Amino acid sequence: SSRTTTVGGLVLDWGKGLPELTTPDGEYSFRFRGRILADYGAAFGSRFSAQNVSRTTLRAARLGVEGRAKQLSWVFEGDYSNNQISVVSAYATWSDKMAGHLVEYTLGNKFNERTFDGSGGSDQTVFLDRDIVANALLPVKGWYGLGGAFKIFGKSWHVAAQISGDDINSANITNNVRDDMTYELRTHWIPWRTKTSLIHLGAWGFYEDVKPAATFSQSTRLLARTDDAFAARINSGPIANSLAGGLELFGIWKSAWALGEYGARHMEFRNTYGAQTFPYRAGTVQAASLQAGIFLTGETPNYFAHTGQWAMPRVLDPVSDGGIGAWEIAARGDWLDAWDIPGGTKAWSATVGVNWYIVNYMRIMLNYTHAHVDNKAGAYPGATGGNIIGVRSGITF
Amino acid sequence: SSRTTTVGGLVLDWGKGLPELTTPDGEYSFRFRGRILADYGAAFGSRFSAQNVSRTTLRAARLGVEGRAKQLSWVFEGDYSNNQISVVSAYATWSDKMAGHLVEYTLGNKFNERTFDGSGGSDQTVFLDRDIVANALLPVKGWYGLGGAFKIFGKSWHVAAQISGDDINSANITNNVRDDMTYELRTHWIPWRTKTSLIHLGAWGFYEDVKPAATFSQSTRLLARTDDAFAARINSGPIANSLAGGLELFGIWKSAWALGEYGARHMEFRNTYGAQTFPYRAGTVQAASLQAGIFLTGETPNYFAHTGQWAMPRVLDPVSDGGIGAWEIAARGDWLDAWDIPGGTKAWSATVGVNWYIVNYMRIMLNYTHAHVDNKAGAYPGATGGNIIGVRSGITF
Amino acid sequence: SSRTTTVGGLVLDWGKGLPELTTPDGEYSFRFRGRILADYGAAFGSRFSAQNVSRTTLRAARLGVEGRAKQLSWVFEGDYSNNQISVVSAYATWSDKMAGHLVEYTLGNKFNERTFDGSGGSDQTVFLDRDIVANALLPVKGWYGLGGAFKIFGKSWHVAAQISGDDINSANITNNVRDDMTYELRTHWIPWRTKTSLIHLGAWGFYEDVKPAATFSQSTRLLARTDDAFAARINSGPIANSLAGGLELFGIWKSAWALGEYGARHMEFRNTYGAQTFPYRAGTVQAASLQAGIFLTGETPNYFAHTGQWAMPRVLDPVSDGGIGAWEIAARGDWLDAWDIPGGTKAWSATVGVNWYIVNYMRIMLNYTHAHVDNKAGAYPGATGGNIIGVRSGITF
Repeated sequence: SSRTTTVGGLVLDWGKGLPELTTPDGEYSFRFRGRILADYGAAFGSRFSAQNVSRTTLRAARLGVEGRAKQLSWVFEGDYSNNQISVVSAYATWSDKMAGHLVEYTLGNKFNERTFDGSGGSDQTVFLDRDIVANALLPVKGWYGLGGAFKIFGKSWHVAAQISGDDINSANITNNVRDDMTYELRTHWIPWRTKTSLIHLGAWGFYEDVKPAATFSQSTRLLARTDDAFAARINSGPIANSLAGGLELFGIWKSAWALGEYGARHMEFRNTYGAQTFPYRAGTVQAASLQAGIFLTGETPNYFAHTGQWAMPRVLDPVSDGGIGAWEIAARGDWLDAWDIPGGTKAWSATVGVNWYIVNYMRIMLNYTHAHVDNKAGAYPGATGGNIIGVRSGITF
Repeated sequence: SSRTTTVGGLVLDWGKGLPELTTPDGEYSFRFRGRILADYGAAFGSRFSAQNVSRTTLRAARLGVEGRAKQLSWVFEGDYSNNQISVVSAYATWSDKMAGHLVEYTLGNKFNERTFDGSGGSDQTVFLDRDIVANALLPVKGWYGLGGAFKIFGKSWHVAAQISGDDINSANITNNVRDDMTYELRTHWIPWRTKTSLIHLGAWGFYEDVKPAATFSQSTRLLARTDDAFAARINSGPIANSLAGGLELFGIWKSAWALGEYGARHMEFRNTYGAQTFPYRAGTVQAASLQAGIFLTGETPNYFAHTGQWAMPRVLDPVSDGGIGAWEIAARGDWLDAWDIPGGTKAWSATVGVNWYIVNYMRIMLNYTHAHVDNKAGAYPGATGGNIIGVRSGITF
Repeated sequence: SSRTTTVGGLVLDWGKGLPELTTPDGEYSFRFRGRILADYGAAFGSRFSAQNVSRTTLRAARLGVEGRAKQLSWVFEGDYSNNQISVVSAYATWSDKMAGHLVEYTLGNKFNERTFDGSGGSDQTVFLDRDIVANALLPVKGWYGLGGAFKIFGKSWHVAAQISGDDINSANITNNVRDDMTYELRTHWIPWRTKTSLIHLGAWGFYEDVKPAATFSQSTRLLARTDDAFAARINSGPIANSLAGGLELFGIWKSAWALGEYGARHMEFRNTYGAQTFPYRAGTVQAASLQAGIFLTGETPNYFAHTGQWAMPRVLDPVSDGGIGAWEIAARGDWLDAWDIPGGTKAWSATVGVNWYIVNYMRIMLNYTHAHVDNKAGAYPGATGGNIIGVRSGITF
């Protein structure tokens, strides 16, 4: 195939869009990587007319570099969407063997594993956005954290552990504010597997010790990211710590797949902040999501068994070879209950989607979402709801 | 030539500064690209002494990547000048044939074709800045837009059509504000061509439906971009929509070239914004520009016939081969009349320039501009004028 | 060695982490380069309890590109730490011969040579941060400047001269403010050299003509950059100009090295700013630093004789080959006296450090610093002090 070019032993593999260069002995390699996700969303049906708007946005615009020299590898990647730089990956990993198992030690800023839908990249989710378990049960520090990670891999399982301070930022440094400290763990196991089917079981959890702040607020978008209108909002007092955990059940049968996730987060709020004192307050947020889909064109669902997460599909009949690409249809229901929290919220949504994979690394996505939300506090309070049609042109290179 | 290295069929072309890698079958390629434009400007002669300052700036500091796999190509490029990231190109293009003609379908954030001087890159203009037709007759969304584009190419013509929402930004999302919608069209035709001469005719237009805003303001710099002093400023009420169009006439005769452009933009202003009401207001902005130049060292003017815009010149006697490089002299007159607009302006300027192209992709530029401006409102109102000497070291890789 | 791959004459050198591509005739080359420095710091012992915090930060997160075509080379590099883009290098250099000596002419934004510890990269210093001579005797424009530079190199010496306006920024342009103009010079000479030992003498200076401003303030961190707590702060009136100079004495004896630096900066303050008038004020800041270290594993200290600055060490027994890496221990004392300045400061600190170089381009660093500071004005005034333990995972590619 012309996708792999070998010149004098040097291997250039073009399968992912940009070539990966590897030396003849396989000991050195490097590649560039990136993604461009361009979205359009049109919202309608809200009782707040200001929410019924349509617009474009770049969901992600990333460029990064990966290198490897023997056991030492590194990744550096930035996100440029919204015209603001955000360093996402910036770490070095040492790979080794421990009792016959691959182990990885990582130092730096890295994406944290948490939930099935939340452990993969934004370019790999089946719908325009991740499920509500991933989006709502998020530690204060966010999706990334600066710290250390350890992973160990078996034939059909892996365990990932991470200790991290806050994601990169400068405000804390000049204000002499300490980091949030977050301890995260995720594991997956494939108890049953045939040539065309498998069952994935997963579990995850985190504990976070949150730095002092005046308030706690969180906004979880229920529709595509083009629009901030239908967001489940928590506007509460300062948080002291939280403990969260969840379960994943995923299965593949030929070209069909299904994923169920459930998780909960117990939050304890601070009794004091500065000169203020508060009564004892705590509460639990629960979230669940159920989704299923099928490739009409016969592809195997895009699951990466090594780490138990989404991957790029392998299109059987790419448009670049004169084919029709891969076609996938899918549906998802999401449910959130944070009514227990002071200034909390509750919400549910239903989404159907069609994905057209032109080649492995480019897809056109169409989603329709209907959402209901009831926020106790903040903008657009009370029970409301609406719809959004979302479209994406997504390329991963 | 050492500019093309072929190893085992893999082709590395170094002609543009950074190598472009192409597979033996020509189906895959990628390259990095960028530009650094470092400017110095010294202003004098204004009746406002605060305007007579001299300073340095980076006019552009860009780095990007281009890839292609068969018919699918993509570009990702960011501008880092002023230490603020601005994603300029982030799109995927599918190339195909339609009735024997090359056609391109593009989705993502892309530069819009508009005017002759405004359709090329900032590193390709003959003077330090584009002509006033390109700079003043600009839609509200700016030079780039997120949306879809279609281009079709003939032997001596092309047509480019584009529908786009706003350029990338996050403010609109969190505020639930809709996009401006802009429809743009440009075409060029070469009716006459010999081995050493040609005539280019071009036409362009746009219609924009502008989102609600409290005011409309626009600042068009008359001198180099090092200085904001001599700017033609419009400070007016909120705009509802505008319709613009223009004509291009360009010609080459041996080493000499000339370009004339004219355009107009009719703006309708809003009758209401929030609780405010306004009387009916509308107005037309007109701009014209005339420029001509000659390569003293015999080069062919740097025109790219495929898309009808500026390109990099092909230096006959590069300094890196012990030569004297290419020398070009040029002059330009610009005229703007936005006096018809509430809070409008009028201005004219005259510029002479010398360009020394050390190699194809590096040039030293020297401009002298004399400008007059009369702003109805805003900073530095009333009739004023002045001069600027501008110097640039520009490298494109 | 697999570190150099030659395919059909094209040379790929992987020695620095990312491959450098060079054509067979050596006339064209390019490479990517970057660094990730991930830090953790824990502060304790201050009488201000708000200063005793621990946190993580990215000290540097950089990605850049270098290219060369015959005599013309260029560098473009950005820093992304703190999630803010900062263009650090953006310049073009022409290399030539003058009376048998290599000379370099540079235009663009470039790092300025100043002090021994301040002339190298942040990934090459022996301790987590540069010495106080480099950090405190800094011109107003900062570490980088946009302008022109000239360098000439002999067998055992070099001279670097630079004229530059401000580092890249946009505030000055839109406010019509002129640049600071800074003139810098640095030279080094190696009067004595054997196979295992050498003496380096260096001298540097700068004069700056500072643009009008309301105040002058400077904050020099005494501990690692994770924490802004123990900073020597100058909070004074507007500065008119300053003249600074210093001396460097560096030596290597087998695996041990020592560096002494001293410098002073005389500052003249403005007599007027806007409608305000001030009495005549001037003052001198003095700084000195003494540091020494030894490689326990027998490496040669990481000195780059061509430009007289730090470089990457050459690890004799890398961990990637099953070795123990390189181990270095070092100590430093820093002293600052800015008591002479209105709103000035005085400070001293002592640091010990251990560096473990896993391979040439990756190191783990551990520093303990004890610091005393006495600020006349600003946050945390009066005599105070404290300690910080700092750790870094640093990779250069």
